[in-house]
Amino acid sequence: MKGYYFGVDVGGTEIKFGLFDDLQRLIDTHKVKTPKEDVRKEIVETIFNVVMEKLDEQEASLNALLGIGVAIPGPVIDGIISTCANLDIGTNFDIATKIKERFQKSHLKVVVGNDANLAAYGEYKYLNNNKIKDALFITLGTGIGGGVIINRQLVTGYTGSAGEIGHIPYNLNNKRLCGCGKFGCVETVAGTSGMIQTAEELMKKEKSVMEKQTITPKLIFDSAKAGDFVGIKVVDSVAKAIGEMAVAVSLVYDPEVIIIGGGVARAGEFLLSKINYHFQKEARFGTVNAKFEMAKLGNDAGFYGAYYLLLE
Amino acid sequence: MKGYYFGVDVGGTEIKFGLFDDLQRLIDTHKVKTPKEDVRKEIVETIFNVVMEKLDEQEASLNALLGIGVAIPGPVIDGIISTCANLDIGTNFDIATKIKERFQKSHLKVVVGNDANLAAYGEYKYLNNNKIKDALFITLGTGIGGGVIINRQLVTGYTGSAGEIGHIPYNLNNKRLCGCGKFGCVETVAGTSGMIQTAEELMKKEKSVMEKQTITPKLIFDSAKAGDFVGIKVVDSVAKAIGEMAVAVSLVYDPEVIIIGGGVARAGEFLLSKINYHFQKEARFGTVNAKFEMAKLGNDAGFYGAYYLLLE
Repeated sequence: MKGYYFGVDVGGTEIKFGLFDDLQRLIDTHKVKTPKEDVRKEIVETIFNVVMEKLDEQEASLNALLGIGVAIPGPVIDGIISTCANLDIGTNFDIATKIKERFQKSHLKVVVGNDANLAAYGEYKYLNNNKIKDALFITLGTGIGGGVIINRQLVTGYTGSAGEIGHIPYNLNNKRLCGCGKFGCVETVAGTSGMIQTAEELMKKEKSVMEKQTITPKLIFDSAKAGDFVGIKVVDSVAKAIGEMAVAVSLVYDPEVIIIGGGVARAGEFLLSKINYHFQKEARFGTVNAKFEMAKLGNDAGFYGAYYLLLE
Repeated sequence: MKGYYFGVDVGGTEIKFGLFDDLQRLIDTHKVKTPKEDVRKEIVETIFNVVMEKLDEQEASLNALLGIGVAIPGPVIDGIISTCANLDIGTNFDIATKIKERFQKSHLKVVVGNDANLAAYGEYKYLNNNKIKDALFITLGTGIGGGVIINRQLVTGYTGSAGEIGHIPYNLNNKRLCGCGKFGCVETVAGTSGMIQTAEELMKKEKSVMEKQTITPKLIFDSAKAGDFVGIKVVDSVAKAIGEMAVAVSLVYDPEVIIIGGGVARAGEFLLSKINYHFQKEARFGTVNAKFEMAKLGNDAGFYGAYYLLLE
């Protein structure tokens, strides 16, 4: 009998599913809107319904279900979701137990992890198949996230805050309040709103093709690629913040590979080469040997990671 | 028959030995000067002689020797010493094989590691006996060293540079060249010569009880404790650099305990409370829960760590 695994990435706006068979192949994906009412119950219900529907499509019974991995946008400690800024689920939600109860299978393997961490783990496992021991994953998007892999394992930390590298102090005097409640994090320069703020500040003094347009990361990168001075300066400020952050992180655990992902990473080689420049310039000792790579899984990284966690 | 383990800490000026019995008790210590000529051969010879002498004193034969752990002041990769700034041993020295050959025991367990890493591991094992999973060790001395323990294991990294946290960029524009060849590392402010430099700079503008004296870390701390304005400012600059470095490191792997050791740490609670103040002020998320502790083993931490590594 064939067996099936589900990786589920629960986001603030949608829930993504990946269906894997027991030969480690992704055979189907699915997306639904994240429920907004009675969220605790409805997330479990949604996962149950989609999993049953997909098993049905494969003409498989519930006995063929080998496990469900779930990625959640918040800190997860020992399988319990502590809090979740983007989901109205209160505190200390034991989603794994609820999923098992809904399937009426107390022995079903259900694992839960933080989405940024699991995206890191997904990219790591997908990229290198365990050849590399230590890796760092950096997501560039609205926020700057991270994932830390040491000795082939995802590191979560004492309070589930491992990999929160976007909040490493970068310029404590820049008077930019971060979403975390502190000032001067890397994210205040390299996150989406930090980039926009830098562009707006520069445009008070410099001419730019971006004037009178709605400033977005895409516009900034497009302008920089077209030679716009403000665009170039903003992209360089992002690359410098990320490159120097990577220098600091590398001195902690000396990873072999640094993987860059997230929406802003779509700027691709243009951004990567600049990050690499700032990293190479400041890296100390052997840490300079770390290789930068682009992430490969895009928005699927979260459910891939949740699936790989199941296989551990 | 009783069995014996040796932890050996090879330093630039002396080699320290700890003799442990098979009940994990330290039963003897010994110190000799580090050889300066024909160093590769003479270090092995010194280790051989001291070990044989100590076994003799215990009325034990060579068969009672269960293992030798060696701490070295340089990067060690897969048991090979890459280079060593303070020992004239060239590159890629396979000391473990040489020790086994000298004892004519090819099955003798010999392990080798970096001294700062092993000091960290020694303190970690000694302090908590595996109750704590993730810990950070910071040594304050001539340089600022570190050791990273994750999942109860010492992390060494891809190039043996894990834990080089004293070289995390702190103020890249401070025009202070670090021993590592880069500018603005934490060590350029919090290391011995950084502290002295800060004191000298401040004394150009401020009166101080330190005038006309030879400035040392001890004088700076004593002056600060006595209320000297320059002394207080220097100690605060050290505490801020170390506290903010700990904030950055904590966001990478979220340790439960941060252990402070090294010569400068003899300033004790006076310094620790100031480091803790700067850490608490800037720590993000749950990483603020990390507890600071003073190291307990002092100069013995290196050979303890080498010994604990043997037991792995």
